[in-house]
Amino acid sequence: MKPQDPAYEVKVRDSFRRQSHMATLGASIAFLAPGEVHLSLPFADRFCQQNGFMHAGAIASVADSANGYAAYALAPPGTDVLAVEFKINLLAPARAEAFLACGRVLRAGRTLTVCQAEVFTAGPEELGALRPGVVRARQPQSSAVAPA
Amino acid sequence: MKPQDPAYEVKVRDSFRRQSHMATLGASIAFLAPGEVHLSLPFADRFCQQNGFMHAGAIASVADSANGYAAYALAPPGTDVLAVEFKINLLAPARAEAFLACGRVLRAGRTLTVCQAEVFTAGPEELGALRPGVVRARQPQSSAVAPA
Amino acid sequence: MKPQDPAYEVKVRDSFRRQSHMATLGASIAFLAPGEVHLSLPFADRFCQQNGFMHAGAIASVADSANGYAAYALAPPGTDVLAVEFKINLLAPARAEAFLACGRVLRAGRTLTVCQAEVFTAGPEELGALRPGVVRARQPQSSAVAPA
Amino acid sequence: MKPQDPAYEVKVRDSFRRQSHMATLGASIAFLAPGEVHLSLPFADRFCQQNGFMHAGAIASVADSANGYAAYALAPPGTDVLAVEFKINLLAPARAEAFLACGRVLRAGRTLTVCQAEVFTAGPEELGALRPGVVRARQPQSSAVAPA
Repeated sequence: MKPQDPAYEVKVRDSFRRQSHMATLGASIAFLAPGEVHLSLPFADRFCQQNGFMHAGAIASVADSANGYAAYALAPPGTDVLAVEFKINLLAPARAEAFLACGRVLRAGRTLTVCQAEVFTAGPEELGALRPGVVRARQPQSSAVAPA
Repeated sequence: MKPQDPAYEVKVRDSFRRQSHMATLGASIAFLAPGEVHLSLPFADRFCQQNGFMHAGAIASVADSANGYAAYALAPPGTDVLAVEFKINLLAPARAEAFLACGRVLRAGRTLTVCQAEVFTAGPEELGALRPGVVRARQPQSSAVAPA
Repeated sequence: MKPQDPAYEVKVRDSFRRQSHMATLGASIAFLAPGEVHLSLPFADRFCQQNGFMHAGAIASVADSANGYAAYALAPPGTDVLAVEFKINLLAPARAEAFLACGRVLRAGRTLTVCQAEVFTAGPEELGALRPGVVRARQPQSSAVAPA
Repeated sequence: MKPQDPAYEVKVRDSFRRQSHMATLGASIAFLAPGEVHLSLPFADRFCQQNGFMHAGAIASVADSANGYAAYALAPPGTDVLAVEFKINLLAPARAEAFLACGRVLRAGRTLTVCQAEVFTAGPEELGALRPGVVRARQPQSSAVAPA
């Protein structure tokens, strides 16, 4: 997709650094392009549910940010994005050394941008090579794009 | 709703203690009954998005757990619950001293339980009195209930 | 909720008459107020799925229109509404003489209005008295409100 | 995907014929394989919303059936499928001579099958060649698979 803001990379990385929730989770940007952002998330014991899998909310957090930054990387200068809703289907227990949340813009509108993220499981080598394993979740999301 | 497991309170509190993600977020059980569980979540700087509001994924995390425990508190002995999907509508930026996520079972089925959570903003006094403020989010969720 | 358009009833009934899909389904307005609209839907053999229950898409159709008109009845003059997404949980097979879809505005925003519909089963007497039976479905929906 | 029921085509076509809602809408099966079913839907004046576009509920109806039959075509003998929830994002007004709803199984589980449909607009030639135009909607859906 064609960037509308030549400074898209700088603004996305700046905003991502201000998301304390991403830093707390240990998430980082693995891929960044207008309309597509991948976030990697290492497994961590302190974000789990009762059976030792990553909590659905932790997985949803990176899926949501991946989608949000996919939308933000594509947005024109002087606009901000805000998630207004999302849906997640949990296809399997989140049990892996690491996860890769790949967010993509399906449609960029004037006020609403619709995104979809897939969250893959990955071992360290796979993450390095950006070769994801098994699909974990699908998360359509509408992000309102607002002039700042 | 009528409990099907007389030990529902013990099993919910045990399971909640094993959810490290809830401890990390600082969430606690504010109300517990078969089919209805309220979780309180204090505001914290390290779970925020880029503008200093609580990240949608942090809010979704407590809404998801509130729903899951509402379903678990109602489930017969020897069954476990697992979230299979959820949807969240973010009605306003998550800006408050504390939040209260109220999960309720809409329908308990043999294999699927459908829940809905509302997340309210609250100041400390309100939380003490369980008098919630403004609606933040609605999150229907299907939880598969499986024999252990 | 306070109407922003004194002509809300006329404009909703006009628009509803133009929804040929509602006429085809045999749906009618049972209740109309700013922010809340109920539509009744009689059972009909030709909108069924393979087991003789009303098709989920027929139920979703009236839930969607109930929400849309709840939002439209509350919208200021000179704006139109357009559904941008919805989610439905099907709690039970749609088997009844009639259905009542009750749409309500949860939050009316400048560009997005979030609604929720509940679809009840009803016999003819119940419909007359607006005393719904069993909950069938919950359908949060975001409606973008746009100046005409 | 590998069929688990050698009679999958017969059983899907039989069931589709019993869905009176599909016949009423004028929908037909354009492609059928285990885990993937495409339904074509001609534009029709009597299933429209107030502006003359196909009603979101009519579009959702074929998306839901496409997903359901994708799941059913993959299901083992002696099981039935039942939609338990779906979410739809409406990316653009449904204005075209015809639509193609392509449902695919994302994950087939023991009790739940998760599907995703995309609805494309199409002119008659495109439909003939199965070359879809523009994405209209994305609809993840969980279908419970139950032994008969």
